[in-house]
Amino acid sequence: MNNQILSSSKDDSLERIKNTIRNIPDFPSKGILFRDITPLLANGPLFNKAVDLLVEGYSEENIDAIAGIETRGCIFASAAAYKLKLPFIPIRKKNKLPWKTFEENYNLEYGSNTLSIHQDAFAKGQRVLLMDDLLATGGSAVAAVNLIKRCGAELVGCSFLIELLFCKGREKLAGLNTRILIQY
Amino acid sequence: MNNQILSSSKDDSLERIKNTIRNIPDFPSKGILFRDITPLLANGPLFNKAVDLLVEGYSEENIDAIAGIETRGCIFASAAAYKLKLPFIPIRKKNKLPWKTFEENYNLEYGSNTLSIHQDAFAKGQRVLLMDDLLATGGSAVAAVNLIKRCGAELVGCSFLIELLFCKGREKLAGLNTRILIQY
Repeated sequence: MNNQILSSSKDDSLERIKNTIRNIPDFPSKGILFRDITPLLANGPLFNKAVDLLVEGYSEENIDAIAGIETRGCIFASAAAYKLKLPFIPIRKKNKLPWKTFEENYNLEYGSNTLSIHQDAFAKGQRVLLMDDLLATGGSAVAAVNLIKRCGAELVGCSFLIELLFCKGREKLAGLNTRILIQY
Repeated sequence: MNNQILSSSKDDSLERIKNTIRNIPDFPSKGILFRDITPLLANGPLFNKAVDLLVEGYSEENIDAIAGIETRGCIFASAAAYKLKLPFIPIRKKNKLPWKTFEENYNLEYGSNTLSIHQDAFAKGQRVLLMDDLLATGGSAVAAVNLIKRCGAELVGCSFLIELLFCKGREKLAGLNTRILIQY
């Protein structure tokens, strides 16, 4: 299965999206260059376009539901679910979801964490697109992929706004239909 | 200014939305009856309808931006921002936003917390709709209202999926154009 790595778009929207991202040195900890997406979210038409571009590559995949990783992934995933009139499934940090959950631990660029999903999040065999804002080491993405599969759903692909190439996270998603809008 | 308290809709969508909410006793702590909205989110057409209903009452307000409170409020607010092609502004827990922030402390039904917003979240005078899933004691809503005003923006109204009447939070939002879809 091919990945979808967008380097430029027919118009200049990807360049404009990239130009809105704000670099914040040493956040959340020393030595990390944080890519702040809030200026993109604050640009209505461009936020809209980013959501469209994130799902555009899966239009023939008969998606049944869209899952997003807390917190920033949920922002794009819920907007995409609204656009497509599909279910939105939140994948959240530990102890945030109130019903029976599956849990997966993972390491991330700074520290470690646990993601969880409701055990009844999907009907069996539902075709799911996973969305997040950032693909770094791939730890949270792999945890989310595992959670979706443990629920009995089928993963159609993973769509990310930003990929940090030096973290090599995409290698951990080999065989999935991964879509990337912009890279650093 | 009048509040907008919806008890029923032209069709039966509000009743169907209410019927999807799952009651979870003793979450996140003993004695709390948690209203779980994930079954609503998992119903694509009904999630879509809930977002439409949340913003429907502000169609003549010339809204410039939509703010949502982390985490569940962001789910509805980002979808609404997508629908209206407007900026989405996240109001997040302390230490989550990477740039310069304003902060407001508040007490909630269980414990206390701090909300923050980027100081450059809005252009001066922008007309902002605040959205959240739940109005309980009103602590987080009042904190969010104060944050929006400290940024120099104008608050057009506050729209909530659920109001817990016994918490009397709406009294703290007197004078605002508050919209409620369902009540307990």
